[in-house]
Amino acid sequence: MQYHIYRSALILLIVSLTSLQAFSQPNQPMYRFAKIRVAANQLDQYHAALNTQMEMAIASEPGVLYYTAVADKNDPTSITILEVYASTSAYQSHILTPHFKKYKETVKDMVLSLELIDLDLVAHAMKNDFRFN
Amino acid sequence: MQYHIYRSALILLIVSLTSLQAFSQPNQPMYRFAKIRVAANQLDQYHAALNTQMEMAIASEPGVLYYTAVADKNDPTSITILEVYASTSAYQSHILTPHFKKYKETVKDMVLSLELIDLDLVAHAMKNDFRFN
Repeated sequence: MQYHIYRSALILLIVSLTSLQAFSQPNQPMYRFAKIRVAANQLDQYHAALNTQMEMAIASEPGVLYYTAVADKNDPTSITILEVYASTSAYQSHILTPHFKKYKETVKDMVLSLELIDLDLVAHAMKNDFRFN
Repeated sequence: MQYHIYRSALILLIVSLTSLQAFSQPNQPMYRFAKIRVAANQLDQYHAALNTQMEMAIASEPGVLYYTAVADKNDPTSITILEVYASTSAYQSHILTPHFKKYKETVKDMVLSLELIDLDLVAHAMKNDFRFN
């Protein structure tokens, strides 16, 4: 009898912790690198499609917060995008939007490979008036 | 005689173009990834040293503009720092500062490898009120 009480208590504890995790994660910002290899003869077209997607997502989606895309100076086909979403659910909504789907369709023959890396923020500091330009 | 004139003109042209490059580059922002592998048992100490360096550089050096450090969620020993300096000369000054030298000395046994990748900015967009936190 005592064994069943302990087992029930343990199961209840695990279920509670799992639910807590499920409910708390969606409020955490989601940081990610998208590492993209672009066909060398399609770079300008890719940049244009990426810019359009980024601008539309930032303008229209409350949960899409930040994008910075950079390319290796010695290999402009190697692009890395640092992305920040308000939550994982904001990201899940993002990939269902018409502008994101249009971007994926537009670039499908330009992108040779794509690697997505989930990140934790370690540290950040910048000048108050700094702007990417 | 004509050969010497052509040769002199060619040398003058090359010297001029090289100088132009040297004078124009310093006004361009310098974007870079520092990819760092940290000893797993030294992560907290490394984060502390990195934070101190970043805060001091941003506070005291006009040419140090932006740092964002992230770690792979699945491998916190793999850290990438996106760095922006006002110019290559601002960066050259930065690595001579006491706080940067102290950082290098502090972390020399924590950092297992370091790769520096010069970057070009491709695109950027963010919410007006976005802050890393």
